[in-house]
Amino acid sequence: MTGHSAAEVSWQAIAKCKQAYRDSQIPQQWSIPSNMLPKDPPLMKYGLQNVLHVPRECGLLSPTEVTITETHSVEDLLSALATGKLSALEVTTAFCKRTAIAQQLTNCVTEPLFLSAIQRAKELDESLAREGRVVGPLHGLPISLKDSFDVIGVDSSIGIASLCFKPATINSPLIDLLLSLGCVIIAKTNVPQTLNSLDSVNNVFGRTMNPINRLCTAGGSSGGEGVIVAMRGSIVGWGADTGGSIRVPAMCNGIFGIKSSNGRIPAGGGPLISNDGTSRCAVPAVVGPLARSIEDIDFVMREVVPRAWMWAEDCFPSTWSLDTPLTGSGPNGEFVFGILRGDGNCTPLPPMMKLLDEVKTKLNQYPNTKAIELAAPQAWTKCQSVMAKLMSADGGGVLAGLLDATGEPLVPWMVGKFKRSEPKTLPQVAELQARRTKLEREMMQLWVEEDGKGGKKSKVDAVICLIAPHPVPEIERYNAAGYTSSWTLLDYPAGSVPVRDFSAEDLELGQPQGGTTISSWDERNRQLWDEKTVNRRVYVGTPLSVQVVTPRLQDKRLIEAMRIVNAAVHREGSRSKL
Amino acid sequence: MTGHSAAEVSWQAIAKCKQAYRDSQIPQQWSIPSNMLPKDPPLMKYGLQNVLHVPRECGLLSPTEVTITETHSVEDLLSALATGKLSALEVTTAFCKRTAIAQQLTNCVTEPLFLSAIQRAKELDESLAREGRVVGPLHGLPISLKDSFDVIGVDSSIGIASLCFKPATINSPLIDLLLSLGCVIIAKTNVPQTLNSLDSVNNVFGRTMNPINRLCTAGGSSGGEGVIVAMRGSIVGWGADTGGSIRVPAMCNGIFGIKSSNGRIPAGGGPLISNDGTSRCAVPAVVGPLARSIEDIDFVMREVVPRAWMWAEDCFPSTWSLDTPLTGSGPNGEFVFGILRGDGNCTPLPPMMKLLDEVKTKLNQYPNTKAIELAAPQAWTKCQSVMAKLMSADGGGVLAGLLDATGEPLVPWMVGKFKRSEPKTLPQVAELQARRTKLEREMMQLWVEEDGKGGKKSKVDAVICLIAPHPVPEIERYNAAGYTSSWTLLDYPAGSVPVRDFSAEDLELGQPQGGTTISSWDERNRQLWDEKTVNRRVYVGTPLSVQVVTPRLQDKRLIEAMRIVNAAVHREGSRSKL
Repeated sequence: MTGHSAAEVSWQAIAKCKQAYRDSQIPQQWSIPSNMLPKDPPLMKYGLQNVLHVPRECGLLSPTEVTITETHSVEDLLSALATGKLSALEVTTAFCKRTAIAQQLTNCVTEPLFLSAIQRAKELDESLAREGRVVGPLHGLPISLKDSFDVIGVDSSIGIASLCFKPATINSPLIDLLLSLGCVIIAKTNVPQTLNSLDSVNNVFGRTMNPINRLCTAGGSSGGEGVIVAMRGSIVGWGADTGGSIRVPAMCNGIFGIKSSNGRIPAGGGPLISNDGTSRCAVPAVVGPLARSIEDIDFVMREVVPRAWMWAEDCFPSTWSLDTPLTGSGPNGEFVFGILRGDGNCTPLPPMMKLLDEVKTKLNQYPNTKAIELAAPQAWTKCQSVMAKLMSADGGGVLAGLLDATGEPLVPWMVGKFKRSEPKTLPQVAELQARRTKLEREMMQLWVEEDGKGGKKSKVDAVICLIAPHPVPEIERYNAAGYTSSWTLLDYPAGSVPVRDFSAEDLELGQPQGGTTISSWDERNRQLWDEKTVNRRVYVGTPLSVQVVTPRLQDKRLIEAMRIVNAAVHREGSRSKL
Repeated sequence: MTGHSAAEVSWQAIAKCKQAYRDSQIPQQWSIPSNMLPKDPPLMKYGLQNVLHVPRECGLLSPTEVTITETHSVEDLLSALATGKLSALEVTTAFCKRTAIAQQLTNCVTEPLFLSAIQRAKELDESLAREGRVVGPLHGLPISLKDSFDVIGVDSSIGIASLCFKPATINSPLIDLLLSLGCVIIAKTNVPQTLNSLDSVNNVFGRTMNPINRLCTAGGSSGGEGVIVAMRGSIVGWGADTGGSIRVPAMCNGIFGIKSSNGRIPAGGGPLISNDGTSRCAVPAVVGPLARSIEDIDFVMREVVPRAWMWAEDCFPSTWSLDTPLTGSGPNGEFVFGILRGDGNCTPLPPMMKLLDEVKTKLNQYPNTKAIELAAPQAWTKCQSVMAKLMSADGGGVLAGLLDATGEPLVPWMVGKFKRSEPKTLPQVAELQARRTKLEREMMQLWVEEDGKGGKKSKVDAVICLIAPHPVPEIERYNAAGYTSSWTLLDYPAGSVPVRDFSAEDLELGQPQGGTTISSWDERNRQLWDEKTVNRRVYVGTPLSVQVVTPRLQDKRLIEAMRIVNAAVHREGSRSKL
């Protein structure tokens, strides 16, 4: 296929070839018995079709492989690998098999890299045997990558036909760094068309399904990562986030994920979908890990962050430690969480308000912790619109060109969402940046107050808010970027913490606060709770998550804050079911 | 004058009024005897006219006032103030008087703030007496500010007629922070027309003179700050730097000054001379202190940096401490300095090469320290041009409008330097930002090398280079921004360290390396060493300084690196004469 041009090959043909090539990379003997495959298309009458249990039950994984993929933390697994209790080959094979299974159940993978992963694992084993020491601190760690990272020899098609069969010739800096640490790349995973959407569907690979409930969205844009990590096809996934693209799939798939501050994790490389350099004038994307525990995220950040500046020009030297002790801003040193509810654009639905109430109560019961209500600043309401305008600064011309190259149409979900427009002028972008500065200034009130002696003091250590004002919605009904995109505009690190599943009792809750809708966003949001426009039973069993936010560059403190929230909400031995 | 408009009052009239108002703020009894005033215009036949000694000898300062202004470090002075050994009133009065003297000798001041400073000092004394404790950790510290900072009730005219008599209504965030710490603002100081130049002359206030040698430039754009601190009119000055505007006047006046990384010190506020928000799309200015010792800079940074995020949206929470121990990259933990010589645009003149040789030798003699030569990366050569283009992204329209408002012409020095041009388009700025990213990537080679085991390691802890490829030149002959502006483009913190005075023996050195000129910059630079185009004796007695640079956000490490350089070059008891 190399060398195809728009005139020669249709986008449909390219998509077919690409899918066929992908499927060919999955060994025949790793096929699931067809009776274990979920019904397609998913319909309410078939029930929720949770497929999380299938890998364990489908008979393809040996008991050892189930144990390897299900019971280890990053730390445990690395320790087993370093001591030779497990070989990299065993571990890699188990995760590759599980990814193959996940792929058949959810369509989460764009590039299965099983051959190269197994080759790499053998090399790691040989090196360990030969040298008597691990290649790096993440020796043998099975990871997955959002399709947008460049890996030598592998496409970064991001689901666009004209980018298929054009393999990358250099690695993204993060990939070089992760390989130097000893990681094994199991697969690259699916994304939405245009990367700028919160539901992962495109013309080349189709739709990625939510493994907890195939009727609901898997989220996006790192949707494949959310799914592969939830399915335990990899132990840590790497995503990228501008509008919420790590935090939203983490929420939809009931796992943890963080969007770090700029400068902590290399974000460069990948396919060019806007004018080179535009994002430096607007808002750059940020990279971060998705994982099944905070400890796993903490572990990889500890290895990646201090080294990042040696691998990538967009990072700076820093340590992965609290620069000040974890005493909080409370009168007795309590760690203070400020609860932010509605963002003024979209009122949270009743189960989401109830979730915040529960988290608040549990935090107030937790030692040395306080949760207080914060009034939503006017500035928060305004962030969403400034962010949306900055994200479309280049008018989408490069991206539109990539679609036009093969005459590829927008997928239905993107119609009306992606519009090619006139690129903004420099004064227009400058004016948006000036508004951003003003919003940043106003948002300082979240964190800081007068100390009564002419100075200032910190009043809140972390903010808790929702990721979305609704539960995990049905496919193509995700409806609010402001709860996530605002924090990228402000460059505050933010992460998703799963709290509990949506319960049948939650269905008994009443109507949203406020009689009238406050925006078109709000109107669509209310439809997600209105029996006339939704069968609310679809939500039962899906994960409910909150977002934790800290000030700029307080990424390590974010992890500690997420740890507190997680510990508080799962205190009575009720560990997350994940 | 409030409410004047262009049609009513000429720029000449405004300048006269402004100067008259300024002079009226200096008490009659603080006038220097006319026989102590230097001859104007300065001419070679009058000798070098060093006026540093005049404050001590002019009879206006009491012996106590001489002691107060000349013998204290920031730490000593604050300790004397906190214990009541000195009152804020005594200290403030001494520094105000000395500033008044400095003004008469060098024309460094735009806004003498003596009345409000003395009022403030009285309040500090009363508060200390009443409360039994200092107002803040910088209680009574006499500071000065570049004219571009906003102080309530005071103009930020930056030497432009149309901005005169329009006092600021709010403080710049840094000023609020400094006042909360207890500082006393003695004066605001002079700048070049347009702020974007390295010689401080404008139509409203005229030219600021170098107190070490009135024939030479005082530097810019924080030229008034360089002079007032060298004259001991304030103990710490605050400047701003994009192209070199702190480091250059520090060099010209033989003091220390640092341009911090972005995000350490509040840089907001001040008069609008480009489209609001443009600098966020291009390269923002950075703020930093100028002082007479590294210890003084360290002291104020320790108080300002950790609090900055509570006062200004452009700063983030951080501590003022080394995040890793001060072991260096050398094989035995030596702190490794990399010496960069010519930047490929402008070959250093022989005395500057000799200066680098001397510093290198002394560093290699210093304990636990190593100095190695670095090949100048191609990328360094390219930084200057990208930076210049980004700095003129808005085409200078706002600034031109401010001049046009009163028909004010460019000063001769700016003719040909400032040109109103078409604002760049967003794709043009984006393309420059993409080139910047590429340069940042290439410049990583300065700091990092392969570790031979698939990883990377730090190879150099700090870079030493020149501030300019020439000694402190005559007025209006400063000729190279690339040695300073490159580090702002890269957001590396950088500081000036005075090493020694230019000596008569330096005049015996030969011709610059390389037979032919490599650029028009280089051609003008060679003229500064060619007896046909300069009387080189003008350099004798002027300070020679080097620049120290560390990676992004390693501001505290920069201070430690500067401390090592200073200690190494002044090791044999030969303390700087300053």
